[in-house]
Amino acid sequence: MTPAPQNGSQPQSSLVAGVLAGNRRSLTRLLTLVENNDPRARAALRALHPQTGKAHIVGITGPAGSGKSTLVHLLAREYRRRGKTVGIVAVDPSSPFTRGAILGDRVRMQDLTGDPGIFVRSMATRGAMGGLAEATVEMVHVLDAFGKDVVLIETVGTGQDEVDIVRTAQTVVVVSIPGSGDDIQALKAGILEIADLFVVNKADRDGADAVVADLRAMLHLQPPRDWKTPILKTIATRNEGITELVDTIDRHYQYLDESGQLMRGALERTRHQVLSIARQTLYERLLQAALPDRTLETLVEAVLQRELDPRSAADALVALVAKDVSETGVPSKPAAT
Amino acid sequence: MTPAPQNGSQPQSSLVAGVLAGNRRSLTRLLTLVENNDPRARAALRALHPQTGKAHIVGITGPAGSGKSTLVHLLAREYRRRGKTVGIVAVDPSSPFTRGAILGDRVRMQDLTGDPGIFVRSMATRGAMGGLAEATVEMVHVLDAFGKDVVLIETVGTGQDEVDIVRTAQTVVVVSIPGSGDDIQALKAGILEIADLFVVNKADRDGADAVVADLRAMLHLQPPRDWKTPILKTIATRNEGITELVDTIDRHYQYLDESGQLMRGALERTRHQVLSIARQTLYERLLQAALPDRTLETLVEAVLQRELDPRSAADALVALVAKDVSETGVPSKPAAT
Repeated sequence: MTPAPQNGSQPQSSLVAGVLAGNRRSLTRLLTLVENNDPRARAALRALHPQTGKAHIVGITGPAGSGKSTLVHLLAREYRRRGKTVGIVAVDPSSPFTRGAILGDRVRMQDLTGDPGIFVRSMATRGAMGGLAEATVEMVHVLDAFGKDVVLIETVGTGQDEVDIVRTAQTVVVVSIPGSGDDIQALKAGILEIADLFVVNKADRDGADAVVADLRAMLHLQPPRDWKTPILKTIATRNEGITELVDTIDRHYQYLDESGQLMRGALERTRHQVLSIARQTLYERLLQAALPDRTLETLVEAVLQRELDPRSAADALVALVAKDVSETGVPSKPAAT
Repeated sequence: MTPAPQNGSQPQSSLVAGVLAGNRRSLTRLLTLVENNDPRARAALRALHPQTGKAHIVGITGPAGSGKSTLVHLLAREYRRRGKTVGIVAVDPSSPFTRGAILGDRVRMQDLTGDPGIFVRSMATRGAMGGLAEATVEMVHVLDAFGKDVVLIETVGTGQDEVDIVRTAQTVVVVSIPGSGDDIQALKAGILEIADLFVVNKADRDGADAVVADLRAMLHLQPPRDWKTPILKTIATRNEGITELVDTIDRHYQYLDESGQLMRGALERTRHQVLSIARQTLYERLLQAALPDRTLETLVEAVLQRELDPRSAADALVALVAKDVSETGVPSKPAAT
């Protein structure tokens, strides 16, 4: 099959022109459209796509309290010192409890924004329709097309959402801190496997060497790879270890490039992105079809009354948006009205 | 609209009869079919649905190392002492690093299985198609239909997957332990809001009172509710605090029942379950349509070559399974072959 044609009107062409010309106001406006899943973002994303693929995308993840934001801040400054431009996308956790902390982070980020070589964007949470990971990836691509040399994605990370987001980076930095030892255990599920580099921050605290030893022991359980996952110590509050961290991140990019993994990774990430957007699009269509005329509520009521089982109710919803596919053996005829 | 008819053949009727007669072999076999998303599970789930809604479903979540498994074990024993039958669904984290620990948990669980009043089931992870949360809920419903008075869902919990799973419980118990203080911060995103009851386990350790104080401070930030979220201390290894924990869980069920929230919660959970299954079904259809003839790979290649943007590629996938919906303004005509 051939790709769908990309012709048609481009109502956002001035926005695209602004972004490509380095206009920060255009960039901010487009990022907002993307964040809000606004249909007007589509044409712009389409037009910008050929300009993507140049930035080094670095994910930084770790538990709350690990000093990630400070690290990201210092990384940005170090990259600037090396003459590179930096985009930052900070993904906020979904809890209303953390709003105070988030505002704090945002304020701390502000002092970077005086530098035109740095662009910082906080990503708010999405509503009931979800799509946080999909929107984040698109925002990273916009910053890439805008011309940033490095795009840093900061996320609080142990859950599937965060793993999905950080997985879109080429280099994944996982931050730990000395603590009860449980922190590393909490990191285990999903995130360890995708770490390209570990940072033990707050390394002046008691137990830093124990964390390093734990990480090393865990890495030994991994199947051997060409890239030996480094474990670095940093003390972000004293700016210690940052130069070496940037050196190591750069070395990882070079490794990816020379080993052909940059290309293989791009294939894997693109595959994941296309599938995610498709899945999210189908779900949005389902909600659009089921919510306005209370179809969903009617079905839920029938399930609660034990007149219908949950899967049959789900099938009735699926039938609203999906083609009839008899080969799956699942009846998908529309329910009678 | 009226619900879809539920007639048709019931090839799994002997399996259903076995489950309803209390046959553990039938139960095990059906749970395996559900876990594997086997089409043969559908008819059985449909037939069992009218028998659901009787069990008290309790979710127990907390970070790795918090002693959840031991707590679940002791809860089950205490319920048995009170003459109640218990089902346990333990959801394993996805990391290959934790397999050792999981096996350990499974072994520890074994000594419960000599009691016919207890049924323990570990839930393995799903493949690329996902659907872990959907399958877990269905397994809980099977144990409910089987006649268990209480169904305990154990999950490692800070991520979205775990929140989705534990949200299906009527009573959510969140376990913390004394530590660096970061543990509570790590719990923040999503899980605190759904806690009906906090347990500070390993309460003989230093810092237990500080964790209690932190939790109490955080609860003060919540909007006031009728149910005052209790904070209990336990020392699971010494069987301390377990009686009070079961008392409190029972008190929560009574509160839900008397306040009408049991019904409202059932509506919310059913709504969520139906939407989740529908979303998952659509995604599986997408993969079934896109994988066999390499449609996905062709589209991904076009995106990598910058001939097509990711959203247009996703639209082409969506068009494979979705009805043409011109009102969304999204072209969904099938791509030319």
